[in-house]
Amino acid sequence: MKPNLAEKLSYHMEPDAFRRFGYAVVDWIADYYKSIESYPVLARVSPGDVRASLPPKPPQQGEEFERILEDFAQFILPGVTHWQSPNFFAYFPCNASGPSILGDLLSSGLGVQGMLWATSPACTELEALVLDWLVDALGLPKQFLSTSAGGGVIQDTASSASLCALLAARERATNFESNRTGIRGRLVAYASAQAHSSIEKAVQIAGIGRENLRLMEVDEQFAMRTEALAALIDKDRKAGLVPFFVCATLGTTSSNAIDPLPQLGPICRQHGMWLHVDAAMSGTAALCPEFRHIQHGLEYADSYCFNPHKWMFTNFDCDCFYVAERKVLIQTLSVLPEYLRNQATESGAVIDYRDWHIPLGRRFRSLKLWFVLRHYGIQGLQFHIREHVRLAQEFASWVKKDPRFELVVEPPLNLVCFRLRAGDDENQQLMDALNRSGDLYLTHTKLNGRFTLRLSVGQTNTSEQHVQRAWRHIAEQASRLLISA
Amino acid sequence: MKPNLAEKLSYHMEPDAFRRFGYAVVDWIADYYKSIESYPVLARVSPGDVRASLPPKPPQQGEEFERILEDFAQFILPGVTHWQSPNFFAYFPCNASGPSILGDLLSSGLGVQGMLWATSPACTELEALVLDWLVDALGLPKQFLSTSAGGGVIQDTASSASLCALLAARERATNFESNRTGIRGRLVAYASAQAHSSIEKAVQIAGIGRENLRLMEVDEQFAMRTEALAALIDKDRKAGLVPFFVCATLGTTSSNAIDPLPQLGPICRQHGMWLHVDAAMSGTAALCPEFRHIQHGLEYADSYCFNPHKWMFTNFDCDCFYVAERKVLIQTLSVLPEYLRNQATESGAVIDYRDWHIPLGRRFRSLKLWFVLRHYGIQGLQFHIREHVRLAQEFASWVKKDPRFELVVEPPLNLVCFRLRAGDDENQQLMDALNRSGDLYLTHTKLNGRFTLRLSVGQTNTSEQHVQRAWRHIAEQASRLLISA
Repeated sequence: MKPNLAEKLSYHMEPDAFRRFGYAVVDWIADYYKSIESYPVLARVSPGDVRASLPPKPPQQGEEFERILEDFAQFILPGVTHWQSPNFFAYFPCNASGPSILGDLLSSGLGVQGMLWATSPACTELEALVLDWLVDALGLPKQFLSTSAGGGVIQDTASSASLCALLAARERATNFESNRTGIRGRLVAYASAQAHSSIEKAVQIAGIGRENLRLMEVDEQFAMRTEALAALIDKDRKAGLVPFFVCATLGTTSSNAIDPLPQLGPICRQHGMWLHVDAAMSGTAALCPEFRHIQHGLEYADSYCFNPHKWMFTNFDCDCFYVAERKVLIQTLSVLPEYLRNQATESGAVIDYRDWHIPLGRRFRSLKLWFVLRHYGIQGLQFHIREHVRLAQEFASWVKKDPRFELVVEPPLNLVCFRLRAGDDENQQLMDALNRSGDLYLTHTKLNGRFTLRLSVGQTNTSEQHVQRAWRHIAEQASRLLISA
Repeated sequence: MKPNLAEKLSYHMEPDAFRRFGYAVVDWIADYYKSIESYPVLARVSPGDVRASLPPKPPQQGEEFERILEDFAQFILPGVTHWQSPNFFAYFPCNASGPSILGDLLSSGLGVQGMLWATSPACTELEALVLDWLVDALGLPKQFLSTSAGGGVIQDTASSASLCALLAARERATNFESNRTGIRGRLVAYASAQAHSSIEKAVQIAGIGRENLRLMEVDEQFAMRTEALAALIDKDRKAGLVPFFVCATLGTTSSNAIDPLPQLGPICRQHGMWLHVDAAMSGTAALCPEFRHIQHGLEYADSYCFNPHKWMFTNFDCDCFYVAERKVLIQTLSVLPEYLRNQATESGAVIDYRDWHIPLGRRFRSLKLWFVLRHYGIQGLQFHIREHVRLAQEFASWVKKDPRFELVVEPPLNLVCFRLRAGDDENQQLMDALNRSGDLYLTHTKLNGRFTLRLSVGQTNTSEQHVQRAWRHIAEQASRLLISA
């Protein structure tokens, strides 16, 4: 046999090189977590800095892996905001954990694409199972089990899940005509003014139109007013419009407000409207029976989503989306070209998850969730969720005791909304100074029209000392600010 | 100081444990790639098998990591279809590589969420840079550079990218009214009957309606007929409809057909229609100047997408989506709530990628693409792409020489469509027998109404020997089938 040159020449990283470099990356990550508090939480670069430090053209010749990793540390890292720092209190958390990162690594290594059951049965079956496990662990209504008429699926984000809910609702409300004919009627959707911006985005995408979304005023707890919803629906119906969708939020982004499902649910039922419940961050709290009251009334919901990638130690992206009637969702999103036909699909005995969301291709995301649930066990997860809530409540008690500050609303769980008893400018200055210090990172919202600071406790490694230190920094900075004012 | 029990008790995997278990997962992946050809390519489980092997309820107590990894190998792996096997010739590839897997691991480890420039400047700036690098490497029109009025963004899949293109087109065609009012007119979209199913899905999602999508007949190469498009647009305009969007495909899923951009482009310009170009798989070929002819006429495009997660050794998910005028896309998809406001956004000096796609949250996906481009260099990527095309062409020459088979169409690149000169049933039987053997995996389509086998060459480690062996198996199986018939 003559030697085949083409077979010998390869630019791929061979398995043993992968092993060596893989160890190096694992080491880098382990060391990163050990030293993470030494970095300023919020990146200090200016627009364009990172890009300017890198070559404007791609390399023609391949480079050594060690060099790439060095460049990462030298040029990329300074532009990173450290979401995994225990001093990260901004937005909602996006917490990761060792078992999750390793489950995700295994998913990358296997490189399966689970669009159909047939293209990797384990990818579909583990996902359905783990989502059923979570129904059990969170005490969700049985209608969301895949062994019932419903079921769950992993999506990238709550934005995408809410869009899918809206589309299924649109299709159901038009007797499954809107996919075919487009939007012709005047469908109307409802949410509170505190609902996530993704609802407005979804309404736009789905062709409903922003002017057919009613963003309703809220009560003093920033929750949806049931009477306002009932009155608006009546008014819209009398005007010949078709109310079809309500999005309720369990734990709004601004203040963690909880919309009242036991009151909203019957109204949706009465009018045959789809009730979608968005619990992106707070849904995880239901792991603990003592916090499960937030989801009272969830049995009225047609769909539900929450994000393990926010507060359940599962690295981004991982949103769990449940529907009570999977056939409505599937009928809404299924298109079956010849090249995807296969015996398993035609048997009707399997789930093909491509019909449960917008993309066709899909990653093996249930692995990381399975790793998290098995590593922590339900008890381990409960422990850390309880800690986060306890720390937030403790922080709120310190705010209350300091006469310079006010608590804007009682924190239901792990998000504290507070402000200096001063103007918006002073509060903005306080926040900016804290974030510039690099010691912690927090962000703001507006409540009752006023600039409000948010302290969100949910980062994996945030413990008592970090919350204490955060408060110390805030109090000290406030002193400096008030003296110089 | 009294000892704080809460601080001591933690269920998290500490950095040194992460290091140890990380090595174990890296080892598992390295060994997997060494032994990957020992597994049947297509999983052999029956519906329900994987699930039945796992406990119906989540564990209350956490478990040892070693145990989780063992269970993965014992219960999950048998249900995996080996997309990374060099004997995987089904669908389009979803190829991964060492540098990509490690770049993705680093992304999981950092755990940043790059929705805004401010939430991790490096995540945004590296993405913009790497997408500009690809404009250079692929010879794409300059209008797609982020340093022009356009720019690129990483999306999960081409399905999502095409939906975003359609939404921007819808908004532009309605003078930016459709987001506000919903769909009122009769917008009409056009694609060839061979376009990907995601176009139909997008038209449904966007409220345009399937009956306002014209899926046009194709020519003998399965490409869009320009005259047919022009005639249909005229007819629709005369009927008072509003033609607004054309999706052209470079490399259709069924047969890799190339729609003629130099002819389609001027028609779109003439009628002010949005031209979106979907090159999900074949776009990567343009790394090689000799294959760049497929994208002649791309300067007419308003948007373009291709998937490094298909053929550019970058693990799922990674679709590169480019627009010529980013302000149209941003105006279509931007919703700015108070809690996302920040100085960098307001300065106008930065990209906030959340306004470039449907989800709000986003992963640091450019890291894996940067790792791939630097590890291989353009020359390394070109080498492997050329090899894949050469092997597919060689396979086609064997098909042509065997009188029992016919080539259904000349393969433009790396996808070969062929069939036994026999009925659909025989071809289905041939495919099923091959897939059952575990030696290789290939899938089918219908062309000219007839069952057609597809051999897609693009898996990272597929080399001459694998394609030779695939052909030997196919020829032998055909002999058995024709004898027994």
